[in-house]
Amino acid sequence: MAFRKIINDPVHGFVTVSDPLIYEIISHPWFQRLRRINQMAMSYLVYPGAVHSRLHHALGAYHLMQNALYELKQKGVEITEDEEQGAKIAILLHDVGHGPFSHALESLLVKNLGHETLSMMIMEELNMEMQGKLQTAIDIFKNSYPKKFLHQLISGQLDVDRMDYLTRDSFFSGVIEGMIGCDRIVKMLTVHQGELMVEEKGIYTIEEFLVSRRLMYWQVYQHKTVLSAEMTLVKILERANWLYQKGDHAVDQNDELSHLLFGNLKKVDRSELEKFCRLDDSDVISIIKKWRYHKDQVLSILCNALLNRKLLKLRLQNEHITFEEVLEKRESIANQLSVSQEDANFLVFTGEAENSLYNLNNERINILFKNGDVKDISQVDSPLIHQNLSHPVKKFYICFYETPLG
Amino acid sequence: MAFRKIINDPVHGFVTVSDPLIYEIISHPWFQRLRRINQMAMSYLVYPGAVHSRLHHALGAYHLMQNALYELKQKGVEITEDEEQGAKIAILLHDVGHGPFSHALESLLVKNLGHETLSMMIMEELNMEMQGKLQTAIDIFKNSYPKKFLHQLISGQLDVDRMDYLTRDSFFSGVIEGMIGCDRIVKMLTVHQGELMVEEKGIYTIEEFLVSRRLMYWQVYQHKTVLSAEMTLVKILERANWLYQKGDHAVDQNDELSHLLFGNLKKVDRSELEKFCRLDDSDVISIIKKWRYHKDQVLSILCNALLNRKLLKLRLQNEHITFEEVLEKRESIANQLSVSQEDANFLVFTGEAENSLYNLNNERINILFKNGDVKDISQVDSPLIHQNLSHPVKKFYICFYETPLG
Amino acid sequence: MAFRKIINDPVHGFVTVSDPLIYEIISHPWFQRLRRINQMAMSYLVYPGAVHSRLHHALGAYHLMQNALYELKQKGVEITEDEEQGAKIAILLHDVGHGPFSHALESLLVKNLGHETLSMMIMEELNMEMQGKLQTAIDIFKNSYPKKFLHQLISGQLDVDRMDYLTRDSFFSGVIEGMIGCDRIVKMLTVHQGELMVEEKGIYTIEEFLVSRRLMYWQVYQHKTVLSAEMTLVKILERANWLYQKGDHAVDQNDELSHLLFGNLKKVDRSELEKFCRLDDSDVISIIKKWRYHKDQVLSILCNALLNRKLLKLRLQNEHITFEEVLEKRESIANQLSVSQEDANFLVFTGEAENSLYNLNNERINILFKNGDVKDISQVDSPLIHQNLSHPVKKFYICFYETPLG
Amino acid sequence: MAFRKIINDPVHGFVTVSDPLIYEIISHPWFQRLRRINQMAMSYLVYPGAVHSRLHHALGAYHLMQNALYELKQKGVEITEDEEQGAKIAILLHDVGHGPFSHALESLLVKNLGHETLSMMIMEELNMEMQGKLQTAIDIFKNSYPKKFLHQLISGQLDVDRMDYLTRDSFFSGVIEGMIGCDRIVKMLTVHQGELMVEEKGIYTIEEFLVSRRLMYWQVYQHKTVLSAEMTLVKILERANWLYQKGDHAVDQNDELSHLLFGNLKKVDRSELEKFCRLDDSDVISIIKKWRYHKDQVLSILCNALLNRKLLKLRLQNEHITFEEVLEKRESIANQLSVSQEDANFLVFTGEAENSLYNLNNERINILFKNGDVKDISQVDSPLIHQNLSHPVKKFYICFYETPLG
Repeated sequence: MAFRKIINDPVHGFVTVSDPLIYEIISHPWFQRLRRINQMAMSYLVYPGAVHSRLHHALGAYHLMQNALYELKQKGVEITEDEEQGAKIAILLHDVGHGPFSHALESLLVKNLGHETLSMMIMEELNMEMQGKLQTAIDIFKNSYPKKFLHQLISGQLDVDRMDYLTRDSFFSGVIEGMIGCDRIVKMLTVHQGELMVEEKGIYTIEEFLVSRRLMYWQVYQHKTVLSAEMTLVKILERANWLYQKGDHAVDQNDELSHLLFGNLKKVDRSELEKFCRLDDSDVISIIKKWRYHKDQVLSILCNALLNRKLLKLRLQNEHITFEEVLEKRESIANQLSVSQEDANFLVFTGEAENSLYNLNNERINILFKNGDVKDISQVDSPLIHQNLSHPVKKFYICFYETPLG
Repeated sequence: MAFRKIINDPVHGFVTVSDPLIYEIISHPWFQRLRRINQMAMSYLVYPGAVHSRLHHALGAYHLMQNALYELKQKGVEITEDEEQGAKIAILLHDVGHGPFSHALESLLVKNLGHETLSMMIMEELNMEMQGKLQTAIDIFKNSYPKKFLHQLISGQLDVDRMDYLTRDSFFSGVIEGMIGCDRIVKMLTVHQGELMVEEKGIYTIEEFLVSRRLMYWQVYQHKTVLSAEMTLVKILERANWLYQKGDHAVDQNDELSHLLFGNLKKVDRSELEKFCRLDDSDVISIIKKWRYHKDQVLSILCNALLNRKLLKLRLQNEHITFEEVLEKRESIANQLSVSQEDANFLVFTGEAENSLYNLNNERINILFKNGDVKDISQVDSPLIHQNLSHPVKKFYICFYETPLG
Repeated sequence: MAFRKIINDPVHGFVTVSDPLIYEIISHPWFQRLRRINQMAMSYLVYPGAVHSRLHHALGAYHLMQNALYELKQKGVEITEDEEQGAKIAILLHDVGHGPFSHALESLLVKNLGHETLSMMIMEELNMEMQGKLQTAIDIFKNSYPKKFLHQLISGQLDVDRMDYLTRDSFFSGVIEGMIGCDRIVKMLTVHQGELMVEEKGIYTIEEFLVSRRLMYWQVYQHKTVLSAEMTLVKILERANWLYQKGDHAVDQNDELSHLLFGNLKKVDRSELEKFCRLDDSDVISIIKKWRYHKDQVLSILCNALLNRKLLKLRLQNEHITFEEVLEKRESIANQLSVSQEDANFLVFTGEAENSLYNLNNERINILFKNGDVKDISQVDSPLIHQNLSHPVKKFYICFYETPLG
Repeated sequence: MAFRKIINDPVHGFVTVSDPLIYEIISHPWFQRLRRINQMAMSYLVYPGAVHSRLHHALGAYHLMQNALYELKQKGVEITEDEEQGAKIAILLHDVGHGPFSHALESLLVKNLGHETLSMMIMEELNMEMQGKLQTAIDIFKNSYPKKFLHQLISGQLDVDRMDYLTRDSFFSGVIEGMIGCDRIVKMLTVHQGELMVEEKGIYTIEEFLVSRRLMYWQVYQHKTVLSAEMTLVKILERANWLYQKGDHAVDQNDELSHLLFGNLKKVDRSELEKFCRLDDSDVISIIKKWRYHKDQVLSILCNALLNRKLLKLRLQNEHITFEEVLEKRESIANQLSVSQEDANFLVFTGEAENSLYNLNNERINILFKNGDVKDISQVDSPLIHQNLSHPVKKFYICFYETPLG
């Protein structure tokens, strides 16, 4: 009987794997590790259902890829078995380079390297381990494969990655108005002159997709409480590093994490990669559970804030935060806690959140009209989809600790 | 034990009725008649699941009203029992004046009177029958009741009517990207200075609501096949009337329908209202099933087109249909069928479809900001919600019969 | 580009048709007519959402057939293109012989012929019309095709027909506890020694399927109010026939219906079949709307009861209804309305409802164990699935009219 | 404005908290800790979506309690505000005594004490902290409160705990056939002679509830892969303890965990309770991530098996596992790995899984018939619900490690 595994997915129904190589990749410890990385980082502090893993998202995106390739083949697009396997592997592994808490900690743990680069490095390791069978996947991932649409399915403004995470995040968080017509988009995909396009009759579904994405961004991913939690997490690691650099080695409690966090690595070799791949959310949570009892008051405050969900206040606004407010709040907290101004920087800080409905500089969403015309979605005549679409919205925030008597 | 009826609703879960007067209204033949009027007219020819009734929609809107009033009371808004009953009755009956196939035939059956006027007349009849117990409902419906927000819940750009029908139509048609966050909107409602408002944190959900509504409009309600079917239905009744006025009384097969359709009534009195309330979709379908065998070729063609779903072609475009095209198509079909130019008008015709994302002249959607400011949703600073929002989109269509060898 | 139609289905997602012959069958007036026959007859009087059509069910069952065949092929079962087409056509047309209100009126309109026989006759007509292309479908439907499992997929205790209607009826009525794991059952299907089987690991899902079916039977299909409405419908037609046979030709208002109802046909030839295929629910509803004003009091009472949902009372019990109770109730209503005892028989009557969890005499559900053993589901060792499973449950009811002052 | 928090729940819609005391309890670190305990332990290794937390379940059960109390009050059952608050608090905290990986590790971490006892102790601590405001909740939880039905809502065979976890586990795992009619059960609840009952018309929904529970038990909770993973987890902790007792203190890497695991505590005082409440899943996962590099081969094998999902094989059968098979497998693995027979016990072991559809010795499910009769569900006349219902099903398993070349 043919090889066949089915996996229950409350979002897409059943995910089927009938290729032994793909199952081998799924079974690899580096992929299994994604079970222990939450797809939505700290969002579960506001949306308690948002606890699904990166592994689940990767399987979902793989499923959509499978459907999309099937649809395209039905429409006469030529896709070989090798290309199909390559595209599926590429999407399965597209996020394998994420570390603990994904985006939130990305810049702290492996400086200068985004998760895409790490995904790429991991894919190359696996390619060696598996006798070069991942070469097509790598070429597609790097966009060096001739059939561009395969890469566009993995990385673009309408790729199966986005389609899955929007659908999945909306499902698990319970924000049903964020639900996109993901199965319909897949049915509307087509290839024209080698590029991925959407059939004309899919325009309204695409509009709705863009607006839902925007809603998810501001209502979920950048919800002020989520933002506060994720920034607190960043400050915890920054404070630990600050302490370490000052000579406090009591913060060093986890070899792999310490190596990356305190190590100031210039580059990542095979051995560093191996260490990176041992890390997941549990390492960060469990070290924070230790640091909560650390003698440094600032570190301890931040860790308890996160673990007990007594979070720092965060105010999000359209205008810049004034320098005066920051200074005043820092001085106040420094006085209350008898800590230095430098310490107060970890308890009162500012930042920005930015989002575009549509980004003209990224892989575009092209609409193929019945008459053969091709238009970027931002050029389609509509009172919704227009030039403003691509103006980014930027918001500013201040995040600050208040003592219980506050 | 207290009076209590529960009704299964796949959309909202369970609808509860605990007020005997409301149950009496639901049990009234004029309300029960709504079981036989399809909420989405001919949309089921494209979306086979879209066969839910106006009665079901009325119960769903009543359920949302119940939830909305509960939420508002929790927020401290004063609502008496009489007002609660009135608002619930008003929403239950808001569409009771719809005739067969609702909007599609509205202007043909009772000229000059919209369905709201008929709903009003029916409510007044019921009020007499029920000893004046519907007076508050009538005052709210007519917007003569002092607490304006009660009327706004029934009739506005964010009323429970729209919330239910968008949710329900999306559910039954299977267009999941049309799903709005209806429970969330209800939770975000508030009353400020006597007017219905939405809390600031509901802005993205409202945006999404407007875009979903637009999607449903073009993708479902005005889908070209639906439009063709509904216009064919109109042409059938117009043709029958044309034949009747020419003296062909063989088209007169249903007393109540004939009375309204051929009668050219100037006004509707109690007895006409009674006749109107006997009509439902089944009368129209069954007369069309007779007319399909009528000797008039045009009538017979149109009836068969509808019943067998061999519909007239319809082309929807952004530009006006040229006079030349219409003439040419009419001449061609007149020749093929050996009918007159006048006859051909029933087989080749044009029209317009128009939709605004948001209408500045209607009851507006007001956002209440945390600082107490109130802004119309079209004034909220956002790259999506902006002045263009209220520009109507207009499309033009030509609809034409093609012979099987066409 | 390849032929391809997609149809939105809120139950299964999208239904895809890529075979022009199948699309031709779907487009045939005899199939389109199923749009006007409600799948659940009068159940919508209790479950307002239960208004989906037989056409929608047929498309859904076709979709499950497509999935089931795909799964079996993946498991190495040989299925040719001709067989695949045949099985799909057979399931599409399995219910095409249903008349208005399906089972409820089956025995009244075409005596002695079940809907399967009519489906068969219609398939044979279509086969002639389409140059013999339906032959394999007919052979599969009649169970004369060598690969028995194809017939078992269409007609058995675990066929795609049941899987679709249970899922669909549960979805539209909102009885979520009736939901079966239909996608999972499809994945668990296999073929062993030419027969359809379920893999061992599907046992619990099958148990749940049987119990859900039982729940739907008693809670929905045979809900006492539904039963009352459907029996009232039967009595209306019986009364009209009784009047007709007594010489009252005023009940004759619809040629096709009258022909079947009053005609006492001994057999159905091509021309009768044609007439039968013109009928749908709208004919019955619209004649009842006329009969409500008929001068016969009994007919008028029954018609109004149905149209206004002022239904006859119905009591369902485990014991037989006593003869005394029936007599007493008939006498009482005869007195109140001043009608004869014979008339009273139409207003007070009894009946039975029966259901088995599992029927040993029907196509069985076979479980294929990993060790190669095959067991009927009723032989599987389990405290739930045991010999009692196949004992039918029988209930008895009395249905009786009460005057408004009753 | 009144106090009010709403929490998104993809399962029940929105959970509302309008009582500041309840919000204070939810905000307590001991309750927040439940965010870090997975409701379904290791089930996510088979069902990747099953990653929801105990906190989410507790909120869901609280929501159902709120609905159930509302329904009962509507039916005339007297429930005071204090009782309502008490019942809600009791259900919120009913599982607060669960430690890491819940049932799986329960007997290892706090010997002799079930999680209910720990929940009780924690509630008493909180009661002191909150000035006795939890007294009614405690009385209800302990079943010492006069109105027994309040306790039955929390702990019985049809309590809101089971209703929520079955619904939630089915939702997140994607096993839709496990879905129960939870909203309908809540509507069917009533109180008779001080006891919780189900109205007669709820019988089929209760049957379906019992069968769904059974399905979830064997298909999800005791799925052989889940069982293997959870037993591996147990063996890991047992092995670590075995090493510790032999003097290998390198396994002691987490103070709180070590204290409980290696401490052989006779009783739990306030300070032990405090330590217990610091533990959650992350402590166990992170210590396993350290132990995977431990020099003891057995410990390292088991840890890697779990982390990389290269699990021990597990065979589940109706018959006892023979002593011979166990011996043979132990000998074989001992030889292959060059370890002792005693070591092999950790790599080859047996166990049992047992489940009753219905337990006659537990709080029963009583049906209240319309005529006032009360019957235990197992006494209701039905071919499904009968004496066998309460016979437990027992299965036996052997779980054994195979070397990669195995």
